[in-house]
Amino acid sequence: MSEEKTTKIIKDENKDATTQIDAAELFTEFKEHSVADFFKKNKQMLGLSGKQRSLTTIIHELVTNSLDACEEAGILPEIEVKLAELGTEYYEISVKDNGPGIPEDKVASALGKLLAGTKFHRLVQTRGQQGIGVSGIILLSQMTTGKPTKVISGTSKGKTISLEISIDSKTNSPKVVNKHYLENKYRGLAIKCKFKEIIYKKGQNSVDEYLRRTAIANPHLTLSFEDPNGEITKYTRTINKLPRIPKAVKPHPRGVSVDELLSYARHASARKVNSFLSTNFDRVGQTSIDNIQKLVHFDLNKDPRALSWEEAEDLVKAIKETKFIAPSTDNLVPIGEEQIKKSLKSIVSPEFLSVVTRKPGVYQGGYAFQVEAGVAYGGGAGRLVSVEKTVEKGVTKTEEVRSSEIIRYANKAPLLFDAGGCAITKTVESVDWKRYGVNNFDTSPVTVFVNLISVHIPYTSAGKSAVSDDNDIVNEIKLALMDVARRVGTYIIEKKREAEKKEKKKVFAKYAPYVVDALVHTTGEKNKDLLLKNLNNMVLEKLKMEEEGITSKEDDIIEDDIIEDEEINE
Amino acid sequence: MSEEKTTKIIKDENKDATTQIDAAELFTEFKEHSVADFFKKNKQMLGLSGKQRSLTTIIHELVTNSLDACEEAGILPEIEVKLAELGTEYYEISVKDNGPGIPEDKVASALGKLLAGTKFHRLVQTRGQQGIGVSGIILLSQMTTGKPTKVISGTSKGKTISLEISIDSKTNSPKVVNKHYLENKYRGLAIKCKFKEIIYKKGQNSVDEYLRRTAIANPHLTLSFEDPNGEITKYTRTINKLPRIPKAVKPHPRGVSVDELLSYARHASARKVNSFLSTNFDRVGQTSIDNIQKLVHFDLNKDPRALSWEEAEDLVKAIKETKFIAPSTDNLVPIGEEQIKKSLKSIVSPEFLSVVTRKPGVYQGGYAFQVEAGVAYGGGAGRLVSVEKTVEKGVTKTEEVRSSEIIRYANKAPLLFDAGGCAITKTVESVDWKRYGVNNFDTSPVTVFVNLISVHIPYTSAGKSAVSDDNDIVNEIKLALMDVARRVGTYIIEKKREAEKKEKKKVFAKYAPYVVDALVHTTGEKNKDLLLKNLNNMVLEKLKMEEEGITSKEDDIIEDDIIEDEEINE
Repeated sequence: MSEEKTTKIIKDENKDATTQIDAAELFTEFKEHSVADFFKKNKQMLGLSGKQRSLTTIIHELVTNSLDACEEAGILPEIEVKLAELGTEYYEISVKDNGPGIPEDKVASALGKLLAGTKFHRLVQTRGQQGIGVSGIILLSQMTTGKPTKVISGTSKGKTISLEISIDSKTNSPKVVNKHYLENKYRGLAIKCKFKEIIYKKGQNSVDEYLRRTAIANPHLTLSFEDPNGEITKYTRTINKLPRIPKAVKPHPRGVSVDELLSYARHASARKVNSFLSTNFDRVGQTSIDNIQKLVHFDLNKDPRALSWEEAEDLVKAIKETKFIAPSTDNLVPIGEEQIKKSLKSIVSPEFLSVVTRKPGVYQGGYAFQVEAGVAYGGGAGRLVSVEKTVEKGVTKTEEVRSSEIIRYANKAPLLFDAGGCAITKTVESVDWKRYGVNNFDTSPVTVFVNLISVHIPYTSAGKSAVSDDNDIVNEIKLALMDVARRVGTYIIEKKREAEKKEKKKVFAKYAPYVVDALVHTTGEKNKDLLLKNLNNMVLEKLKMEEEGITSKEDDIIEDDIIEDEEINE
Repeated sequence: MSEEKTTKIIKDENKDATTQIDAAELFTEFKEHSVADFFKKNKQMLGLSGKQRSLTTIIHELVTNSLDACEEAGILPEIEVKLAELGTEYYEISVKDNGPGIPEDKVASALGKLLAGTKFHRLVQTRGQQGIGVSGIILLSQMTTGKPTKVISGTSKGKTISLEISIDSKTNSPKVVNKHYLENKYRGLAIKCKFKEIIYKKGQNSVDEYLRRTAIANPHLTLSFEDPNGEITKYTRTINKLPRIPKAVKPHPRGVSVDELLSYARHASARKVNSFLSTNFDRVGQTSIDNIQKLVHFDLNKDPRALSWEEAEDLVKAIKETKFIAPSTDNLVPIGEEQIKKSLKSIVSPEFLSVVTRKPGVYQGGYAFQVEAGVAYGGGAGRLVSVEKTVEKGVTKTEEVRSSEIIRYANKAPLLFDAGGCAITKTVESVDWKRYGVNNFDTSPVTVFVNLISVHIPYTSAGKSAVSDDNDIVNEIKLALMDVARRVGTYIIEKKREAEKKEKKKVFAKYAPYVVDALVHTTGEKNKDLLLKNLNNMVLEKLKMEEEGITSKEDDIIEDDIIEDEEINE
């Protein structure tokens, strides 16, 4: 059968291949396309494929948009999410926040045009960063229902405006209908849109799990979620203070490329390269300038707009050889060690927990970033796989079977999908967990938490569900993980040692009376209690010596900072 | 330390959070961006991050572009790739083909503008499909070297033109310099561009491996590669006939969404919905039309341009309930079972090989697709991990340690990166390999080959390195894999059985003389040879019966089409 088929194909090929087609004819179909059409045809690149995943992505885009807006405006966020079922695989989603709102003249293009917004061109730690998210959602809504998205926006100064937005995908521009002002004073943004071909389900990749993880990483957020059954889950903020407002930063010189440097130089207001460097970049002082001048082959008093590619290359090379202070930490706002501990304690309830917030670093492109990592071990840590019951001698025992789980965040927003393609997952899996007492990582009760924060997260795609494996970032994540794993390892080894000691004591207690009897018999000593006491002391002494022996062997994984960690169920 | 730090942060927060910022102030930074700027900042989404990966992606984009052009024009492809090292992490890449070339009036925008081309809006099985690839490469070249890309284009009719192209990323438009005509007659496209921050290395993700895999899947291609050391690798075509030219297809009705239907209807030349359906879609005949008319609540003689969303929904629902012939297979051009077998035999040299080309199917959006899968087992199959030497009784034995490997293709183009995030990898890993005699998949000598072909591959990102996990596609890949795995399973079980039989015979041969001696002793029979012969026959009879018993037990994994498969090293 297979042979026949192949032969047939070859004959067909022969026939077809004889005619060659000219370039002009081939290019009659040449066309240009808008970015909206591109993402419409490739909605999977926005995370909008799969019925459950699409729904979670929609909620993700709307909620992160609200959180970013509130934080940038210095407002403690209160977000209401509502999901109503309108029919089979047909839902209405409403997300309402108390944020700053969008000014009337910007609202249509901010929401109804892809690649438009306030975040893309600035270096600021926000959850969204591309100006695609919400407009992609509006596109999906109209693609599946033919309906526009209803928007109500109120700012602290202007009027409250109501409008309906859809996107002309051929031109990537917003179409607005039914625009009018509302009487009620409201500050914030409320979005209501309908979708078909999505499904609401509970479980690992659900909206519920997404919002739970959002609450874990955003203790200053009050969030309510009404599911299609009318059940309301409310997360009330546990901190009444807003995290510092993340500020847009200047690029750090060590990360700048020649192309970027020239691009900045062309729009520079400074008239000399030296002042251009100190005004446009972070951490460039007179000492650095002097050093750079010694290394480059042209005068830094030159006009930056006249820089040639070769001179810019020379400059970047000199910058790479010059020492700078690390990027300022003020621009990155981590969740913080204490807060992560509190969250994981209350939600995961592990036996042992170790958390670290590393110092900020910088990766390619001059982007500041910072890694937070935690390992929770034992107790409620890991993912519950099953509960096994065994009956032995009439006694029923239940045992929870747990596997490891990895909780990923980027700028405090949970990453639920594309785990396999994410640098965070890969790095967690690359850790030699055996070294830290976790003999089989996959089947161990471990929750690994990683939060990557940056003024620009290098996502693998516009769907923002996985982080690309940049070397600097991977190294930082690995160091963070090794740091926390080391402490967990010490705990696990200590626990094993205690168990061994107990076992030895138990064995001794069992046989000691017989030994004493034998001693009485051979020595003639009558005081059994004294013999038992001396024997006991001897054994304890022996165990102590053994322990010290073990300790010195295990020194390589014990750190000075062990005191910082805490054992929860002491 | 950790506590101090946290306290300090909370204080800072307090100070900052008191001031709220107004929406108008927040939106002063509002801007619109071009798709070129988007990908320039997110080059990892194009597969252009990492020094080795960037290089392989560059080669991939240029080579697939050439292959597509040749095949579309009906030309047997000859491609020359040259890589020259200009300095540290600094290379010049040249790719020259014998394709149709690009007409003079289209060359600048075809190469110097993202999202422009002939492929995006048509349903045709090509390697490229977005109009981003080569323009992304030109963008990377100018970003890292500041230099434009040199292009020579000659068509069968026009003059040969030489020009240098760069891209204005602010506007996503081409900038052309040094344009002139050449005396020499040349048909094809030659591209020469320079890159910094890339590295040429041999190994798993190298250009060499990429081109080797390209040659495996494209037996009609002649390809030469000159590496930076001047070493030339040449793959000469093994088939002198071009595969059928893939043709653009009409969408199959079963895959069309309401939004797409309306979009087609608005630009329809037909004046009635019924004729619109039969002219714009594949496989819609009068019987289908009649059936649809019975199901919908409006007259199909209506003007398609007047269709409302509700009517279109009605129509799509009726289409879903109507039977159609499967999409025409002419539009998909698989490599073919025989050809894949030949390639894998010559390159992998396995002990056993099974290959299947499945029938075409259709997935969401009306896209036709087809899956080819192969499993090579034993011999040279799998990836060589190490060679272990053991010395026993003075004899040195060497043993090759092999792990499994998965070779992925999309439209015959190798996918080397993002394996973890790819539906193909996930599906291979989801197969219960134990059922098929492969007890530990990871550490077995297995090469799994999968080629997904389609008029539209659902890539996870614009970098086209992984396939999104669409249900229909995943199911087809799984069925294909189970099919080939089943045959490999039968082989492995047969092999085990043979080994057992041999072992039993060996044991018998060892003890038979003693049994005969005992028989002589007890029965008085003197003819030892006769006894041995009878005993031998009894054992053979017994082994045969056992074998038949086993065979009937294993029936569930044996298929009728087993005759098609071949054991190579018989």
